[in-house]
Amino acid sequence: MIIVLQPGASEAQIDHVIERVRGLGFDAHLSRGTYRTIIGVIGDETKLQAAPLAAIAGVAQVLPILPPFKLASSEAHPEPSVVNVRGVKIGGGNLGMIAGPCAIESRERLDEIATAVKAAGANILRGGAFKPRTSPYAFQGLGVEGLRILREVGDKHGLPVVTEVMDPRQIEVVDEYADMIQIGARNMQNFSLLTEVGRTNKPVLLKRGMSSTVKDLLMSAEYVLSQGNSQVVLCERGIKSFDNETRNLYDVAAVPACRKLSHLPIIVDPSHATGRPDLIPPCALAGVAAGADGVHIEVHNCPEEAMSDGPQALLPAQYAEVAKQIRAIAAVLGKTISSLEK
Amino acid sequence: MIIVLQPGASEAQIDHVIERVRGLGFDAHLSRGTYRTIIGVIGDETKLQAAPLAAIAGVAQVLPILPPFKLASSEAHPEPSVVNVRGVKIGGGNLGMIAGPCAIESRERLDEIATAVKAAGANILRGGAFKPRTSPYAFQGLGVEGLRILREVGDKHGLPVVTEVMDPRQIEVVDEYADMIQIGARNMQNFSLLTEVGRTNKPVLLKRGMSSTVKDLLMSAEYVLSQGNSQVVLCERGIKSFDNETRNLYDVAAVPACRKLSHLPIIVDPSHATGRPDLIPPCALAGVAAGADGVHIEVHNCPEEAMSDGPQALLPAQYAEVAKQIRAIAAVLGKTISSLEK
Amino acid sequence: MIIVLQPGASEAQIDHVIERVRGLGFDAHLSRGTYRTIIGVIGDETKLQAAPLAAIAGVAQVLPILPPFKLASSEAHPEPSVVNVRGVKIGGGNLGMIAGPCAIESRERLDEIATAVKAAGANILRGGAFKPRTSPYAFQGLGVEGLRILREVGDKHGLPVVTEVMDPRQIEVVDEYADMIQIGARNMQNFSLLTEVGRTNKPVLLKRGMSSTVKDLLMSAEYVLSQGNSQVVLCERGIKSFDNETRNLYDVAAVPACRKLSHLPIIVDPSHATGRPDLIPPCALAGVAAGADGVHIEVHNCPEEAMSDGPQALLPAQYAEVAKQIRAIAAVLGKTISSLEK
Amino acid sequence: MIIVLQPGASEAQIDHVIERVRGLGFDAHLSRGTYRTIIGVIGDETKLQAAPLAAIAGVAQVLPILPPFKLASSEAHPEPSVVNVRGVKIGGGNLGMIAGPCAIESRERLDEIATAVKAAGANILRGGAFKPRTSPYAFQGLGVEGLRILREVGDKHGLPVVTEVMDPRQIEVVDEYADMIQIGARNMQNFSLLTEVGRTNKPVLLKRGMSSTVKDLLMSAEYVLSQGNSQVVLCERGIKSFDNETRNLYDVAAVPACRKLSHLPIIVDPSHATGRPDLIPPCALAGVAAGADGVHIEVHNCPEEAMSDGPQALLPAQYAEVAKQIRAIAAVLGKTISSLEK
Repeated sequence: MIIVLQPGASEAQIDHVIERVRGLGFDAHLSRGTYRTIIGVIGDETKLQAAPLAAIAGVAQVLPILPPFKLASSEAHPEPSVVNVRGVKIGGGNLGMIAGPCAIESRERLDEIATAVKAAGANILRGGAFKPRTSPYAFQGLGVEGLRILREVGDKHGLPVVTEVMDPRQIEVVDEYADMIQIGARNMQNFSLLTEVGRTNKPVLLKRGMSSTVKDLLMSAEYVLSQGNSQVVLCERGIKSFDNETRNLYDVAAVPACRKLSHLPIIVDPSHATGRPDLIPPCALAGVAAGADGVHIEVHNCPEEAMSDGPQALLPAQYAEVAKQIRAIAAVLGKTISSLEK
Repeated sequence: MIIVLQPGASEAQIDHVIERVRGLGFDAHLSRGTYRTIIGVIGDETKLQAAPLAAIAGVAQVLPILPPFKLASSEAHPEPSVVNVRGVKIGGGNLGMIAGPCAIESRERLDEIATAVKAAGANILRGGAFKPRTSPYAFQGLGVEGLRILREVGDKHGLPVVTEVMDPRQIEVVDEYADMIQIGARNMQNFSLLTEVGRTNKPVLLKRGMSSTVKDLLMSAEYVLSQGNSQVVLCERGIKSFDNETRNLYDVAAVPACRKLSHLPIIVDPSHATGRPDLIPPCALAGVAAGADGVHIEVHNCPEEAMSDGPQALLPAQYAEVAKQIRAIAAVLGKTISSLEK
Repeated sequence: MIIVLQPGASEAQIDHVIERVRGLGFDAHLSRGTYRTIIGVIGDETKLQAAPLAAIAGVAQVLPILPPFKLASSEAHPEPSVVNVRGVKIGGGNLGMIAGPCAIESRERLDEIATAVKAAGANILRGGAFKPRTSPYAFQGLGVEGLRILREVGDKHGLPVVTEVMDPRQIEVVDEYADMIQIGARNMQNFSLLTEVGRTNKPVLLKRGMSSTVKDLLMSAEYVLSQGNSQVVLCERGIKSFDNETRNLYDVAAVPACRKLSHLPIIVDPSHATGRPDLIPPCALAGVAAGADGVHIEVHNCPEEAMSDGPQALLPAQYAEVAKQIRAIAAVLGKTISSLEK
Repeated sequence: MIIVLQPGASEAQIDHVIERVRGLGFDAHLSRGTYRTIIGVIGDETKLQAAPLAAIAGVAQVLPILPPFKLASSEAHPEPSVVNVRGVKIGGGNLGMIAGPCAIESRERLDEIATAVKAAGANILRGGAFKPRTSPYAFQGLGVEGLRILREVGDKHGLPVVTEVMDPRQIEVVDEYADMIQIGARNMQNFSLLTEVGRTNKPVLLKRGMSSTVKDLLMSAEYVLSQGNSQVVLCERGIKSFDNETRNLYDVAAVPACRKLSHLPIIVDPSHATGRPDLIPPCALAGVAAGADGVHIEVHNCPEEAMSDGPQALLPAQYAEVAKQIRAIAAVLGKTISSLEK
């Protein structure tokens, strides 16, 4: 960490800053430039994040040097991690192909969709039982009944299942039914929820918040890791931007940017990133080409009747087509779609 | 709601769209233009929000006309609402002046700060007991002990108190100690939490999320209102932007924009919006000049020792100065700082 | 175009709106809903863009239906266009591979770089002679001398050349030396410049502005097309965002989004989009996988001595590696890197 | 400037960096921390902006400390500047009130509008003769004929006049007719244009680009100042954001943020910032309360017939009302609307 002093900082102010730094258990290294005096803080700066050094009189700026996360960082763990979702590997050359409807609507519909996506190459089934809806008047999901359907249909097709949790009070029951727990974009900084899923031993699918930087995403992963759960898969799903040509702005560069900073696997979700079925296939391929460890796509066999987000779902035939192309692009990069380990 | 069809939409597709619209209980009005055919949907469109009309074959766009919220809208309730926080009015010409430290640190410190802000004209005391921190390694707040201190200090100085809730499991205890419950920016779309505070009968201070539009904010207010709690105060506190000159981008135009769409009071929080003590006073005045119903400012008597967000706090003397100017600007607009009703 | 009236609009106001619409040569179609009255405007709405219908009393909103550009639209020209840069095709399955240094620094250096990129598979040479620099104190380019070097080196290696124009007064000389004229991101809405390059008969490389939507980009292309020059290649090069992990936000979804709206070829520039050499290769592959008609990459053989944007250049060996991967991804999609036609 | 080295940087790399820094004429100060080695660069860092230090092997980050502009900075010139527009002062407690139509349409109309805004308190008349329009099919302005009208009407009412220049070839004629030259938001980084207006001796009204940071704006001012023209007035007019509730995002905090960094006066333009007549008055007041040195508002006496931007113009009566409130807010802050010096 580097502390830059104001142009006219007095000697007494400089001494006070050094004293505070030393009082916090760090060493301070003074350097006087032509225009500014700076103080290098020597020691483990992650311990200083909460210290209000910028509030000390005479301080102009505090420049952090190290990333604010440790367990999630590639420095701490240089090899890429591989997360195992009940036998399906994500990371290290293995692609997770997560597919299914936005919301679980009925056993019959989920079974039809699962049959289709499994045939196309999906290896994890998704479906929402507790739905975060922007309108209080919209369908809020089937709840526990939905979880039961998801478990049953996943088992029938040999597909591990992932579903979203919105409330710490739902974690116990979701943990009972699901193989992977999803934290949605709107809850990426719901710190109570992150702490609680960190206390389970289930893999966590952590979606990037719409106004979160890559470092914010890794900081939220750190919350989960800090509780002892190391099975986190990151997910790029679009951030806010000024162009409403797409629902969100698909930040495909976040894939290699996360890879550089962290060992955690990262997948892409072109369904939520674009909100447009015509853009999902090219954006899915772009994600894989950029190095993603998997692709999350919403699929529905009758979008016009879907109870949630129908307009952004692919039809089963469209999914089969894009899955074929994903396999070809993955092959160029030496990767394969994981199959369930026996 | 207006449905725009694709250029080459067939008669069968047009008929199917009309049939679906009628099946949902609405009337459909067909209009053929030179380049496009459109269908006007006649009826209460808020009931159609969840219907995936955009997913029907042949549909190019679905254009909503009405805002997606009802209870929060100024059409439903043309007169501005006044929210009463244990005797302090916010709205209708009455300014709420909320001040206090980011986090409650100790009884002595809170008492000193409360003494100062009360003398300067603040009418509601704030302080965090449960803190949403981006780092799992940072101070997380004193919890219930903090709530007790807040209640005690507020009572001593005759100031109603507001504090943040982060988790539905905290609502019961926060409701016991606080006069107003704050939903923070990161939880603006934590729908479980919104639903639960909507079931209390306490005024709610709802902060705008960093990636939320003005309409998203009103939609979150609708969640609270839809549960029967009509005491919501909105708060503009900055949104994400590309310029890191300030911590967030202070959207002062959101104040009159909310006023146009909604009857709910709206206050501003220049502390979080700018993150810079030197910008807080001018931005506080700007908010009042734009029509805000109050100002939320963080105040600390020793920022360099603050356990949270010290670098963005005003000193008591700085707060006293800005409060004086706020009073003068408010007078120009015919408003006054509310005092506690006896 | 659809005009939505305010809730309480009077009959006189409605009549006045209809009268204005008819006075402008359009037909008006009135439709009264439960909550709002709307007027459909029938005719070629692009002619209405400048008409201030939203300013008429009683009007709440004006909703355009057609895109605001005509010549650039895929409706006007359903087949993808192929632009020919002195024998090198861009579009229709042919990839343009534009490479070279940010600025032309000397004949020797450009010759070395051209030798390397040609060997790696580049088919168009780039280099800046007039440089738009954010600092008035930075190197501003070699000017006409740079153009001469570019022409000579391009000819030596059999590579057509592209260079940027910043000022209408430079167009004549740039047109004399270059095979393709670039409009930089900062000039995407420099309408004088767009008009002037539209009067040349050279292909134009039009870079997306940092705060431009996809539709803004197409509208700027329309300026060029409207002057009679139909040889426009669009270029996605990143837009502004709140995350400074990358220099700009690479909007890879803009590639298929432009394809949907327009017949013009679109290429990607991962150098400016990310500003980080480590992210250029994965983002180049992502662009091709998303359907781009080419890739623009800055290459320098000694970045630490580059006179402009050195830190974002690839080394020749890195370029050769990514070009090989681009060829493999392109093959999956049935595309090839164009070679110069004899 | 501080150079942070990569974790594993070798001694040879460190030596090479130090050698490069010294070769550029600077002193280097090495500091070895627990996790990172950093090098402080001692000397005038603005001379290093173009040096690609980040491209040297072993360098992780280059952190600038000083702002990249010098002439515009408040360090170079601590007292606020006052710009004199033919007798009307802007800055130092004097408010410039710039008003008039978006485009000059006819002598009669401009005369009517000038009569009204002058009576309301405006002290500078604006009107566009060369219009930057996003559509090539929209009204492009009356050109030189418009300039003649503007001059004539300004003289008749004793109002100095300001108009926009879009092309370096227009500067000579605009300089002949206008008292102040405007650089529009889309041309804020048109460096040819900035250089040329820097060579005139007319005050320049420099509007902030829609994707420009506060520092980018000051850097563009530096271009003008570096040519010898010190009469620059900055203008905040909204930046791009994800919320289309307003046309742009009015960044009122930019007013005090510029004041902190620079001595140049800064005014606000709520017309372009919001694009909504109902929001212009509260946002104008907010700008003045935040410390702006003036307000730029578009006024038209028949918006529905305006040839450009009619929907965002105030009516003369609305302008008179807001001017009255501006005067009252200004008085609270000890400022006055400048009147023409005799």
